[in-house]
Amino acid sequence: MRPVREWFSKEESPRHADPEIAGLFDDLVTANQILFHQGVLDSFGHVSARHPKNSDRFFMSRAMAPGMVRAADILEFDRDGIPVEETKHSLYVERFIHSELYKARHDVNAIVHSHSPTVIPFSITQAELRPVFHRASFLSPSAPVFEIREVAGARNNMLVNDPKRGKALAATLGGKNVALMRGHGNVVVAPRLRLAVSRAIETEVNAKLQLQAMLIGGPINYLSAEEAETLEADLARTKPADARGADRVWEVLKRQARTRA
Amino acid sequence: MRPVREWFSKEESPRHADPEIAGLFDDLVTANQILFHQGVLDSFGHVSARHPKNSDRFFMSRAMAPGMVRAADILEFDRDGIPVEETKHSLYVERFIHSELYKARHDVNAIVHSHSPTVIPFSITQAELRPVFHRASFLSPSAPVFEIREVAGARNNMLVNDPKRGKALAATLGGKNVALMRGHGNVVVAPRLRLAVSRAIETEVNAKLQLQAMLIGGPINYLSAEEAETLEADLARTKPADARGADRVWEVLKRQARTRA
Amino acid sequence: MRPVREWFSKEESPRHADPEIAGLFDDLVTANQILFHQGVLDSFGHVSARHPKNSDRFFMSRAMAPGMVRAADILEFDRDGIPVEETKHSLYVERFIHSELYKARHDVNAIVHSHSPTVIPFSITQAELRPVFHRASFLSPSAPVFEIREVAGARNNMLVNDPKRGKALAATLGGKNVALMRGHGNVVVAPRLRLAVSRAIETEVNAKLQLQAMLIGGPINYLSAEEAETLEADLARTKPADARGADRVWEVLKRQARTRA
Amino acid sequence: MRPVREWFSKEESPRHADPEIAGLFDDLVTANQILFHQGVLDSFGHVSARHPKNSDRFFMSRAMAPGMVRAADILEFDRDGIPVEETKHSLYVERFIHSELYKARHDVNAIVHSHSPTVIPFSITQAELRPVFHRASFLSPSAPVFEIREVAGARNNMLVNDPKRGKALAATLGGKNVALMRGHGNVVVAPRLRLAVSRAIETEVNAKLQLQAMLIGGPINYLSAEEAETLEADLARTKPADARGADRVWEVLKRQARTRA
Repeated sequence: MRPVREWFSKEESPRHADPEIAGLFDDLVTANQILFHQGVLDSFGHVSARHPKNSDRFFMSRAMAPGMVRAADILEFDRDGIPVEETKHSLYVERFIHSELYKARHDVNAIVHSHSPTVIPFSITQAELRPVFHRASFLSPSAPVFEIREVAGARNNMLVNDPKRGKALAATLGGKNVALMRGHGNVVVAPRLRLAVSRAIETEVNAKLQLQAMLIGGPINYLSAEEAETLEADLARTKPADARGADRVWEVLKRQARTRA
Repeated sequence: MRPVREWFSKEESPRHADPEIAGLFDDLVTANQILFHQGVLDSFGHVSARHPKNSDRFFMSRAMAPGMVRAADILEFDRDGIPVEETKHSLYVERFIHSELYKARHDVNAIVHSHSPTVIPFSITQAELRPVFHRASFLSPSAPVFEIREVAGARNNMLVNDPKRGKALAATLGGKNVALMRGHGNVVVAPRLRLAVSRAIETEVNAKLQLQAMLIGGPINYLSAEEAETLEADLARTKPADARGADRVWEVLKRQARTRA
Repeated sequence: MRPVREWFSKEESPRHADPEIAGLFDDLVTANQILFHQGVLDSFGHVSARHPKNSDRFFMSRAMAPGMVRAADILEFDRDGIPVEETKHSLYVERFIHSELYKARHDVNAIVHSHSPTVIPFSITQAELRPVFHRASFLSPSAPVFEIREVAGARNNMLVNDPKRGKALAATLGGKNVALMRGHGNVVVAPRLRLAVSRAIETEVNAKLQLQAMLIGGPINYLSAEEAETLEADLARTKPADARGADRVWEVLKRQARTRA
Repeated sequence: MRPVREWFSKEESPRHADPEIAGLFDDLVTANQILFHQGVLDSFGHVSARHPKNSDRFFMSRAMAPGMVRAADILEFDRDGIPVEETKHSLYVERFIHSELYKARHDVNAIVHSHSPTVIPFSITQAELRPVFHRASFLSPSAPVFEIREVAGARNNMLVNDPKRGKALAATLGGKNVALMRGHGNVVVAPRLRLAVSRAIETEVNAKLQLQAMLIGGPINYLSAEEAETLEADLARTKPADARGADRVWEVLKRQARTRA
């Protein structure tokens, strides 16, 4: 039996020779741990980061439960979602979400694909997911919904498991930060990893708040487009983008994930 | 006082002489721990597995809280739910759920009976539990509801505590994977134990998602029959059935159950 | 800082000279721990047990948070809620709930008063709390609601802090097992402590299930009066009453409360 | 990796020379830990206390996640929200909530600003947050909602980040104990810190209860104004104000926050 303290044991594998990449691997592991602990990722879903020195590549773990990911599990993928080095490990069948979004969105350096629980209901009803509080300004004006039937036909397996489906998802996302996937989950993108993590968490929080507001009833006083723009402009002025907020979330949730496992 | 690390202490009893059976006992213990930690089983409910070498028999613990089950608590039952070896321990009064479902369904090798909390409301209202996301394809097109009054009369004790009631439940289940039991709980079946565990968890998740979607309102865009069939066919092509998904769930939730007790 | 393992440290005070009373004290401490861990009791509420050898008396802790109660904190009260031995400690102002219910109900040997969260909404709306699943048969046909304004007037402090109000609550309860207290909480009674604990937990579970069923909508298929009677008669045949079920709940939740604190 | 026990390690910095201030710092740290553990504060929000010997000043941590605050992080602010000693640390941009409320309300000695999750929906719908149970009497008759657009215009960033906005919030709060901030969060004030903490927790509890009651439907039997007044008058008679209740909450939740981190 593993006591709590051994959940996140030291990696035995050698660290990446490039310290920047090694640091990014540490952050990818932490991102998986935080999102698992927060219930945004469960036994499925994945998080990736673009290669900081080769924009045609990205890093993501092999196919495994996010809560188990360690640095040694992270692989490098090319622009088409093919592992740069041959591997005997199985791969996430939906890695084309990542490869196609990185191709389409040069401003994006990190992507979370999750089945975040309160977001899914907004993908199968007529209501739009819209920002109801200040921390969800990145959702403004609303999150589009990807309908896989339009690209894969009625007899589809719901998975974005080829480049064509990935491109269609990228088209639905357009220039936005979040897209819902009907009856499946969502994708969240950001210019850096810690911001993608906090956006993924806030997307779930916003969904809970909006659902409760809808239950109370009456017209909902959403965050206005002007307010969302003002907030996003404020955040964009900090360098790196939204450093303060996203880093504050990161530090406390990293500690919490590691001490409460 | 027992610290967390001692919750799952080593068994002192000798392991089963047959290594395959001993391994199955380990898995039954883990299944109980995972389902308890996930809130699918609470102080009640039970999980069983068919004997891998004698299809007329199955294994299940004596009557006790699932969270307390250890390998030494597991008994062997014959096709009528009678313990193969005489025992002084009390038995689950509803063991006929298991014996009759194994008789009726030769494709089934594991069964979970739980009072999974969000599923019960679907057993006492007019709404059908239907798959709303891809991981619940096994629920398609919907889960039937077993009405015990039809077999046991108005003055019944709600329990499937004899073979006649077990047979009636098997008739309601038919060839499906999940049946709800009105005002009581549900049964989930699968060709192997780990898949039964993940299906039991996903049944609860689906109920939560469907309930939330109903609260948002409007027509719900359910997983279509074609999508569910395609997904199930995909999973059936992996050997053992759905190995990848169910095993991924198993490994991370086993670790979580054991480190967070 | 106290690590988890020290939450429930050994009592330094001498045990009660009478082993039966000492054992009851242990159980009262455990009852407080379980109900706190389950979220039935929070920082308030209280649990008591009738003196097994002097039916005019009962045991309950001094005024303190239930999660902190130890055997040394338990006091003996007379039939009017007055401590048998003079004490410097402050007392629960609502101890008259207990004294008056023990007077009125000779079949009752344990009482839980809580602000169990999902039960309160049923005390301030028009809906009756009714059993929706088999484990809540003790709620049949429904839980009455105590309106303190009727005994204490419009300008009251919501508290059952004198014998008159206690008697009025006892009158509302009548021969039932649970009464709601409008805008406040509820009382649960039972012939023995472990059964009172499991009933208090199941009352909260039933409220959650019933609320969800009401959200799904349509006529709810409640547990019928015949079913509830049959179940209660079954339980009454086991000696002590409902030993198996309540003891199973007790053992696993005791372990869980103590290892997860 | 930090095991649970090291979450709250000993401060290495010297304690404040004034024992009263040192004790208040301890309590501010504990307040942050409790409110974080209870989910009232998440990665954001802040809690402050007025200087006990200089009513023009108050104490609050530098800008950081509440769950990470230690005594060494607490700074002293003047009546305009300016740190008394120069600091290299970043500050909460919304510290003017605190400075302006302390100016406007001489009876207030502690303030919690949070994004308490179930309270936000009441700030963006037509329903008023009103007390539904006895422990929320301080909310009577209802909590006003601060609309930042009225002071900061349509193109605002939702934050009370200057004195003018702080004054407007104080005007909305008036003589009440809680004000909601539209699409953002709420402020809770009290004559002492432990009471502010318990009020912040009960505000969240009340919001959950009220939301559930609204879901059940029908006219809600709110706590009447007479009942709330009677309860508040009762509490005011204890010295310090509501000592018993707030201290009971404090002690058990402090222990829980520190042992479960």
